[in-house]
Amino acid sequence: MRRAREHLTEHLRAALLSGRVAAGDPLPSSRMLASVVGISRGTVVSVYEDLAGEGYVVIVPGSGTYVADGLAAHEAALSAVTARPKEPQAIAAALPARGKVNLSPGSPATNFSKNRDWVAAWRSAVKQDLPGLPPLAAGNGQLRELIANHLRTARGVICTPNDIIVTAGTSDGLALTLQAQRSQGHEQPRIATENPGYPTARRVISASGGTPVPIPVLNGGMDPDALRRAPGTFSAALLTPSHQYPLGGRLPVAARLDFLAWAKETGAVNFEDDYDSEFRHGAPLLPAIASLDHEQRVVLIGSYSKTLTPWLRCGYLVIPDPELRGHALRVREAVGQPVSGLVQTALTEFMRSGGLQRHLVRVGREYAHRRKLVIAAAEALGSHCLLEAVEGGLHAAITWEGSPHADQAVALLAEQGVEVASLSKYYHEGSPAMRNGIVFGYGAPTDLQLRHALDGINAVLGGPIHFK
Amino acid sequence: MRRAREHLTEHLRAALLSGRVAAGDPLPSSRMLASVVGISRGTVVSVYEDLAGEGYVVIVPGSGTYVADGLAAHEAALSAVTARPKEPQAIAAALPARGKVNLSPGSPATNFSKNRDWVAAWRSAVKQDLPGLPPLAAGNGQLRELIANHLRTARGVICTPNDIIVTAGTSDGLALTLQAQRSQGHEQPRIATENPGYPTARRVISASGGTPVPIPVLNGGMDPDALRRAPGTFSAALLTPSHQYPLGGRLPVAARLDFLAWAKETGAVNFEDDYDSEFRHGAPLLPAIASLDHEQRVVLIGSYSKTLTPWLRCGYLVIPDPELRGHALRVREAVGQPVSGLVQTALTEFMRSGGLQRHLVRVGREYAHRRKLVIAAAEALGSHCLLEAVEGGLHAAITWEGSPHADQAVALLAEQGVEVASLSKYYHEGSPAMRNGIVFGYGAPTDLQLRHALDGINAVLGGPIHFK
Repeated sequence: MRRAREHLTEHLRAALLSGRVAAGDPLPSSRMLASVVGISRGTVVSVYEDLAGEGYVVIVPGSGTYVADGLAAHEAALSAVTARPKEPQAIAAALPARGKVNLSPGSPATNFSKNRDWVAAWRSAVKQDLPGLPPLAAGNGQLRELIANHLRTARGVICTPNDIIVTAGTSDGLALTLQAQRSQGHEQPRIATENPGYPTARRVISASGGTPVPIPVLNGGMDPDALRRAPGTFSAALLTPSHQYPLGGRLPVAARLDFLAWAKETGAVNFEDDYDSEFRHGAPLLPAIASLDHEQRVVLIGSYSKTLTPWLRCGYLVIPDPELRGHALRVREAVGQPVSGLVQTALTEFMRSGGLQRHLVRVGREYAHRRKLVIAAAEALGSHCLLEAVEGGLHAAITWEGSPHADQAVALLAEQGVEVASLSKYYHEGSPAMRNGIVFGYGAPTDLQLRHALDGINAVLGGPIHFK
Repeated sequence: MRRAREHLTEHLRAALLSGRVAAGDPLPSSRMLASVVGISRGTVVSVYEDLAGEGYVVIVPGSGTYVADGLAAHEAALSAVTARPKEPQAIAAALPARGKVNLSPGSPATNFSKNRDWVAAWRSAVKQDLPGLPPLAAGNGQLRELIANHLRTARGVICTPNDIIVTAGTSDGLALTLQAQRSQGHEQPRIATENPGYPTARRVISASGGTPVPIPVLNGGMDPDALRRAPGTFSAALLTPSHQYPLGGRLPVAARLDFLAWAKETGAVNFEDDYDSEFRHGAPLLPAIASLDHEQRVVLIGSYSKTLTPWLRCGYLVIPDPELRGHALRVREAVGQPVSGLVQTALTEFMRSGGLQRHLVRVGREYAHRRKLVIAAAEALGSHCLLEAVEGGLHAAITWEGSPHADQAVALLAEQGVEVASLSKYYHEGSPAMRNGIVFGYGAPTDLQLRHALDGINAVLGGPIHFK
């Protein structure tokens, strides 16, 4: 059944891109196609839904399924680009204007309005009578229990609901942890941060009275030797070990153990930002640092920004050290738990009903599919280019030697309506050896938008011929 | 129509409390009663709904309306208490055990599950496709526009949506403002706070790196002369001018102008906490300090914790001073807007549809009714007692001269299952002249719970005879 579905999807995609169909042409009814192909009607319906989600077709309820606009133009553009014009102007002219495509990293797929589990979870949350009190400082107990269960089964992290504090996302969690460290007596906590790394985290650290200190990335994560050589004392190292952000790669197990040893030696803590471990493509996950820790030296920072959407503003901290957790809880008790009780109840219900798990399977399939498009497009790039970070998550990076400068490439793409991020903005200010690269997300765009953007990327980076 | 409704409600309440009906007895059908009394059936239905909300009757959908449990016991207790036993043990014995009644101040009425506007607003918010991005740092633009419009018409405060930042409530707003002041260079902001005053605000100030400095309350608010006499410099004065928390009273207009002058002279700011101005009983509102301000020296702190519920975690700041606002926005941009986009969308829709206004009218009627019960019960108190704060909002305070100590009174009430707050916890630690008093909320309880609690209060404070 799975194979029939994939086969039909591939086949229809190719047909729709062939240029032999016109925008607005009706597709055969699901009943008709099912009997012709010899598969269940339900399979055809879900294939049509997938194609609609990808932007190939439009489903008109009560009427039928129709070919989307712009497919022929796309095909024409593909041939034009394949012909490799020599001038950037020619590239821009060859690409059809089809509105902006925003591939800024970080946006997940969010087609929630049609997700029955989601709608049902919210309906149930709204129908409950609301307490006239603020939510618990640590967050909803049932939600923390579900999070603890999930972390145990999915990440091997043994924790209890009491170790968990609900947050308004990764930034709120990081800010709260820093505030707790300051209550512990770290007046201006120095935090080792990956370079290149997550720029938002650096801003949060500075806004929370701390100092982010750049440590180079090597072999899929922060280089522990560079950290040991760095002068001064640190209150923590902020790591993205399951999928280094933004360049990808996994921190080797030996390095994970080394960071635990470093934390013990120096009295510091590891902040483990587990931002997209739910989505793996090929390379299996390595054990979370939190699962290797027996000294309460890891704070796990989780969020639903990638698994659901940053619009929701919900995440969590796991703080096994009772002293640090106590300080964090006292801040929460003083200033209040910021996550609405309604959001917590709805998320609890969404997890309890299995809706979140089903959502992850569904979007994981989408991401795996779009990742293939990214890999296929990257094959056309010159050997001076390297595709990175595609072993997991919902973003990719392309780095290259020589020209153009990353910011110039981003500007050229922006002229074509394709928004990606320059790798330069992931480096700490004043970093000596910045690589040229772009970082882009493939979580949110439709297939067609992604193909268009990839065409643009290929045109800009396609060969040294344009820029040498 | 209004009079017929009120008349019928009063009449039925008296009949239900008379002891002549038994728990579970059916009330006449609404159709029958309407034709007997000669009013519309709709009026009878809403009277029954009111009585159900107050706990007198139970509506069984598809069946009918029935007398609630415990009314007869209540009547017996009333007579027992009226007989004035001489010993506290006798009081406790006379009061029926009917579970705990929590009158901790701060909880509003929250019967949302039956509020069609509320359910519709959330349905609409959940049905929208969610962005894969975080909410705007300042908050939803439409929401800020609705808040600005409301402040203009209801409070005379002229502001634009750009002056407004959405917050997760009063505490979050206060913490953000302090962080902004610290970014401005106030290393450890000293904030003048009312004594007695809102203890949570003091905790927020301390947790945000500031120092709350007690200034005595006089004539319905902070005493501006005491503030001027206080040593040291202040970065702000935190005021509850429309309804001093917890003792009630309104800050006179002359004092409002004096605080503006003080702020201008000293370079400080007034934080105006407008926590319950939507609910007035009798005494009209005075102009908000923010509406008298022409020097951008007021930060208005608003929240939906009293008008809706603190469970929602939503409020706002109005910061007219662009420099201070810029600092607050930069913190929000670095750490993120904590209020879920879904909460903001639903609240926007609830305000836009008029649902919030209808809700305020409905609960305002409830509060006015329960406030009458409080005033009626307080008439039985001795002349050594004073009922305070009932000119607005949803809480009241009773203060008295002599014994018992406030904490003892609270403990005696707790033994009877009645939870109220001691006035002592509203004073700054180590305050020299604390008055004896209790503070209690009447927003959340049913009429019967409130009557039970008021009986308990009267028994404990009823006359000097028990405690002299």
